[in-house]
Amino acid sequence: MNDLKRLYQRYQVEIEREVTSTLRSGWWLNGAMGKKFAANFAGFIGVSDCVLVANGTDALELALAAAVGRNGARGRGVITAANAGGYASCACWHNDLVPHYVDIDAASQLISVSSVLAAASTDTAAIVVTHLYGGVVDVGALKSALAEAGLSHIPIVEDCAQAHGARIGGRVAGSLADVSTFSFYPTKNLGAAGDGGAILTSDPAIAEHVRRLQQYGWVSKYHVGVPHGRNSRMDEVQAAVLDVFLRDLGDRNERRRAILGRYKSAARRRLQFVEGGDGAVAHLAVALCDERDAFRIFMKEHGVDTEVHYPVLDCDQVGWAGLPMKGTEDLVVTRASVNRLCTVPCYPDMTYDEVGQVCLALAQWEAM
Amino acid sequence: MNDLKRLYQRYQVEIEREVTSTLRSGWWLNGAMGKKFAANFAGFIGVSDCVLVANGTDALELALAAAVGRNGARGRGVITAANAGGYASCACWHNDLVPHYVDIDAASQLISVSSVLAAASTDTAAIVVTHLYGGVVDVGALKSALAEAGLSHIPIVEDCAQAHGARIGGRVAGSLADVSTFSFYPTKNLGAAGDGGAILTSDPAIAEHVRRLQQYGWVSKYHVGVPHGRNSRMDEVQAAVLDVFLRDLGDRNERRRAILGRYKSAARRRLQFVEGGDGAVAHLAVALCDERDAFRIFMKEHGVDTEVHYPVLDCDQVGWAGLPMKGTEDLVVTRASVNRLCTVPCYPDMTYDEVGQVCLALAQWEAM
Repeated sequence: MNDLKRLYQRYQVEIEREVTSTLRSGWWLNGAMGKKFAANFAGFIGVSDCVLVANGTDALELALAAAVGRNGARGRGVITAANAGGYASCACWHNDLVPHYVDIDAASQLISVSSVLAAASTDTAAIVVTHLYGGVVDVGALKSALAEAGLSHIPIVEDCAQAHGARIGGRVAGSLADVSTFSFYPTKNLGAAGDGGAILTSDPAIAEHVRRLQQYGWVSKYHVGVPHGRNSRMDEVQAAVLDVFLRDLGDRNERRRAILGRYKSAARRRLQFVEGGDGAVAHLAVALCDERDAFRIFMKEHGVDTEVHYPVLDCDQVGWAGLPMKGTEDLVVTRASVNRLCTVPCYPDMTYDEVGQVCLALAQWEAM
Repeated sequence: MNDLKRLYQRYQVEIEREVTSTLRSGWWLNGAMGKKFAANFAGFIGVSDCVLVANGTDALELALAAAVGRNGARGRGVITAANAGGYASCACWHNDLVPHYVDIDAASQLISVSSVLAAASTDTAAIVVTHLYGGVVDVGALKSALAEAGLSHIPIVEDCAQAHGARIGGRVAGSLADVSTFSFYPTKNLGAAGDGGAILTSDPAIAEHVRRLQQYGWVSKYHVGVPHGRNSRMDEVQAAVLDVFLRDLGDRNERRRAILGRYKSAARRRLQFVEGGDGAVAHLAVALCDERDAFRIFMKEHGVDTEVHYPVLDCDQVGWAGLPMKGTEDLVVTRASVNRLCTVPCYPDMTYDEVGQVCLALAQWEAM
């Protein structure tokens, strides 16, 4: 689905120079390279603060903790979608918050703004909107609707783990709400050579709270000022890698969009590719498909691997059955979609021939 | 206190070969290098299973979760010392467990076996023993005493974050209890070029539970089988670095012990260096000192930096004042020690002259 060797080879000289220089500095955590990348990434997204953490799930957990102010919110609901792999749900439970699932829009597979509105109440501690597959939730519309309903105090967390550089209405995903979170898992649009994550905000109070939470709640070394901290830092080496990749993120996103565009042209009848909006960045090429199992076998026979993102809804995970959750009865579109989802390969380092092979297979499936 | 550049330069050729080879493989998480280091480290400690995680605090949290089986233990006590920097306390609260602080032995600054015994009850969910400063808690004696008291079912977690390769009675710290945890923070006796941690055990059920918890509770990709999971993995690059350093850990521990031995010879009257036992590995050279502030100024004037590990007891941290805890009234030795602790530089890459300079300053302080 994604050959990271090709990505690496393209940037090998520069990465090895930056990585060895970082290693030789002897400063491997909380150093100058992390500061540099954090500043560059904050500038790229268009916010004042970027806090680097260990991974995207930690980012969600700490952002949520800082956004809601944990003690007063214990047991309250966090509105989110059930189709985004479970990372936001994990973050809720680690904060003693209760995921409150709402339905999605069929065409985009993104959380439905009207469903969020219908579910939001004084019990709502926060809303997590995931810009799934590279598509972008209309956070502006959500904010207007919340304001109209007298609920503009509810913090919104943008989960941008699949949407580095995505845009809507000229604004960049990650700058639209109170706080946003990113994962830099290697296969992401912007990925490290290992795990990494970040929390971005222009709210200095949230930034400060997150900075404390990511190192045990310290206000200064060994002095704990806020509860519920943990250890979640990004290695300097990974910041060095990310700073190299960041420069080409825009070009690489364009390449993803072009590949997905070709797939969409090849398949319009039996497959519906998910539509993430004009500024979407095609993190994954996901289609809805009525005969998914047959389609996957067909593609395999034509030399194309497929995947499912994600096969199980958060509310249906066996291991989470005993945990508190709300809203599971109203997920009509979510439930109608989950068994029809199929992901085909889409990453910037695919060759022209490989993309052509996928297009040909898609066209043959459509013609059957 | 610790010049990591010197460490790096000593191993530079080998590390850069291993790191670039790992980067070039394109396999940056959950790969062959992690497997190799985990097997080597499990062999070194003498257990069957080693699970690599993101850092030592996560290791404590996940080991505790797996050892106690979280749901039944919610709200129960975890016996631990209050002088070990707070990492075990963090891990307790993230598992909805309550730190139950007990006193330490004055000479070793390690958790007191008799205090553990006096505190242990049917309410006790687990015991965390921290092999502080490189000294080793007598886990064998603790186990015998617990068995005699009919409490051998209480799981014991060894926190070995400061005791890589330490021994007691011929056995290696980390192999003495039900499960053990390690941090590979760069300044540790075995440290990565960034964050890393590990959980070691010879109990296959604990190992399996931890493996699930460290990736969202997955029993297979995207399928959650157990609750309370998170993301906590070690990057392949860090495993590559650690595998290089592991080979010389024994020699480097000997060097630390020799340095601490020289300090002890130089200072026996006004300073009492902490005695961690015959198999201790001198992670830190910590002394008890009645006039600590004066001593630190004196050392600074003689060109020697000092530190305090740790300046604030867990039970006295301002940020944790509202969290549940027990046993805070009975910490006579712990409280008598905390304002007398002082750490002087001790790491294997110190030069002969630097060690001599510390010894001279210590001798002059003693002579005053």
